[in-house]
Amino acid sequence: MTTYQPIPVSYDEAPAAEMRIVEGGVCAALGVRATGVHAGFRADPERLDLALVATDEPCVAAATFTKNRFCAAPVQVSRVHVADGRGQAVVLNSGNANAATGAQGREVAERTSQIVAQELGCDASDVLVCSTGVIGQQLDLAPFETGIPAAVASLEADAAGAARAARAVMTTDTVPKEIAVEIERDPSRGSSIHVGGFVKGSGMIMPNMATMLCVLSTDAPLTHEAAQQALSDAVGKTFNKVTVDSDTSTNDTCILFATGKTGGAPIDCDDEDYPLVASGVLEVCQVLAQKIAADGEGATKLVVVDVFGTVTNADADTVARSIANSPLVKTAIFGHDANWGRVAAAAGKCGVEFDQYDVDIDLLGVPVLRAGMPVPVDEDDMLKRFEGNEVRIVVDLGQGSCHARIWTCDLTHEYVTINGDYRT
Amino acid sequence: MTTYQPIPVSYDEAPAAEMRIVEGGVCAALGVRATGVHAGFRADPERLDLALVATDEPCVAAATFTKNRFCAAPVQVSRVHVADGRGQAVVLNSGNANAATGAQGREVAERTSQIVAQELGCDASDVLVCSTGVIGQQLDLAPFETGIPAAVASLEADAAGAARAARAVMTTDTVPKEIAVEIERDPSRGSSIHVGGFVKGSGMIMPNMATMLCVLSTDAPLTHEAAQQALSDAVGKTFNKVTVDSDTSTNDTCILFATGKTGGAPIDCDDEDYPLVASGVLEVCQVLAQKIAADGEGATKLVVVDVFGTVTNADADTVARSIANSPLVKTAIFGHDANWGRVAAAAGKCGVEFDQYDVDIDLLGVPVLRAGMPVPVDEDDMLKRFEGNEVRIVVDLGQGSCHARIWTCDLTHEYVTINGDYRT
Repeated sequence: MTTYQPIPVSYDEAPAAEMRIVEGGVCAALGVRATGVHAGFRADPERLDLALVATDEPCVAAATFTKNRFCAAPVQVSRVHVADGRGQAVVLNSGNANAATGAQGREVAERTSQIVAQELGCDASDVLVCSTGVIGQQLDLAPFETGIPAAVASLEADAAGAARAARAVMTTDTVPKEIAVEIERDPSRGSSIHVGGFVKGSGMIMPNMATMLCVLSTDAPLTHEAAQQALSDAVGKTFNKVTVDSDTSTNDTCILFATGKTGGAPIDCDDEDYPLVASGVLEVCQVLAQKIAADGEGATKLVVVDVFGTVTNADADTVARSIANSPLVKTAIFGHDANWGRVAAAAGKCGVEFDQYDVDIDLLGVPVLRAGMPVPVDEDDMLKRFEGNEVRIVVDLGQGSCHARIWTCDLTHEYVTINGDYRT
Repeated sequence: MTTYQPIPVSYDEAPAAEMRIVEGGVCAALGVRATGVHAGFRADPERLDLALVATDEPCVAAATFTKNRFCAAPVQVSRVHVADGRGQAVVLNSGNANAATGAQGREVAERTSQIVAQELGCDASDVLVCSTGVIGQQLDLAPFETGIPAAVASLEADAAGAARAARAVMTTDTVPKEIAVEIERDPSRGSSIHVGGFVKGSGMIMPNMATMLCVLSTDAPLTHEAAQQALSDAVGKTFNKVTVDSDTSTNDTCILFATGKTGGAPIDCDDEDYPLVASGVLEVCQVLAQKIAADGEGATKLVVVDVFGTVTNADADTVARSIANSPLVKTAIFGHDANWGRVAAAAGKCGVEFDQYDVDIDLLGVPVLRAGMPVPVDEDDMLKRFEGNEVRIVVDLGQGSCHARIWTCDLTHEYVTINGDYRT
């Protein structure tokens, strides 16, 4: 009897050895304060709904935004405000996305940045704005008028402030999502560098440029070019590889502040410390991206789809995304059904050319298809393997040497309940 | 106060006035017999699982097949058998798709056609084969060996035979789907023409070339070129515009037999009767396509998405499909939530360029967005409008004069239950 070996997976980008996870989230970087308050966008007075992150002075700021043509008013405003590569604060509200709201929505987003600027004593053009929640309803300015002064008064440079901010942006998220790392470097070049941040995102998640809302900070003295490149690279490899439901939000925004508080010479893209900082940004984004997929609306499983053996990386991405977005694959995983035929069908439907008799598929570490022929599997063993929190799907199309990884989750009754419920 | 008129919809292709709906399904056309039997692919002895449609003699046959790269063994075999433009029978089984089954699966499909040929006394190359059910499991030949002789013995040229065939191909379908029309023509050119057929399809439905499994027949004396053109045109306008879950099946097949039993001269594409027959094929396909969408797995609503105002029809198709495949739009409809912001987001995410401040949206016949600004709606009125069986979404992007229509359904708990259940 033939025995089959699983397809070898060697795709993980390991963090730099000098890196360790630390407390503090977005406030782990020196020179960053944060908070979350209840401003009144939501009825429940216990629920935080306004987050504010501020740096001690104007600093380098980089951002990526949704490519959705119905991009929200705060996206339009923030895009202009960050165009000069500098910023000092970002204000985020949950409960209303201020999207598809026309000129009135843009006016509200502009006014919001002005209120923050007035309270912090900075330029409105250094204030970015983010919103998340229902689309197509006008956003009331009043909660900002009382909430922003309260937020400024409660800003803290510690883990508690960061945690409040991470909590205030949650919508259908079941857990706040934050992470920070510390990266040692040659002491002659300056003190250790921190990269931290938080993210929100659970439904309407197939980011195209960035995740729903993500604020990152580092105290490394990155130049604007270096900050933008580190951010864009990391977003492309992490958030843009997550799909919960194939729905790209109107509000996706990812912002990186670089305060430079570690001291030392400015770090440009060709500086010897750039790879250190970039790997920190990548690590933080990767952890946050996985947290989004694992906390997908109604999800019971994190699903990791690896596709190998394509002629281009773009082909691998197309096939992996087709599998990750297939409702039939996602419901089978929810049902603990090792129905890998749906993986084959999803790979075959997306337009990428291959010969089905070259294809190998592994599910949960078990070879299930080899050269287009089904491999008999032990269904009881498969059921046991479904008990973990993670499901791995590996497909080798046998056409070339390229690959891609997509993170997703299963499709459950709870997803339908969450999104079928009438707006409240 | 401004009042807004709904976006005018004038997209329906009205059937020719000479056409009327008749009984008989696939047997409405002269020279066609059909049946369905229990052959043993399914455990329940009450459930029909083998359908057979046969014409009295070899006749013109046209077909379209899935573009899925994992196309099933019966698709590979049928493609070869219909290449000469002729056929005499098609045998269809439910319960096992014979897809991703390698050389062994192709052998089973070939053997199946040979058994039918032996029992009917025709050439195996005139027998087409279709399968539907689970992917990745070898299909047993034994049920064909006993089931096909029983099927041949029970072939009937009437509505009862047609109905049995329509029932035998059902998987998660909740109702059989068949229709037939009669088209009058100038008596000097021959007797009235019939077009009829049946289809199965409920999940893994976003046909790319054809629907899951569809058998059509006409007694018009179409040439092969005319049959193929009438079929391809109709499939492109109907089945290929349906999406239940964005999952293109490995087995999609649509077959048209043209028996020529009405008599009269052969009808080629430039014959004066060709438009009559083509409109009959289109009407039958359109009715069957709507039946698929309305019977989508777990569906409670037929959803019709019209997109106008694009520069190309392909752009309109992309936008309409993006809306129709959005899990957030589909769950909102299930929840009777007039959350049109999700329609805007789905339109904006798909890469088609437009200015959001040119966009109008109607939901359930009510203007909800005009030139990118939300129009206040009466939520109680919207809730009432959700009580019907059909939900209409109309989007005008204001960029050009092209349009597209896509049929879909809502996404419900029942879809998750059906597809999350362990294979049985």
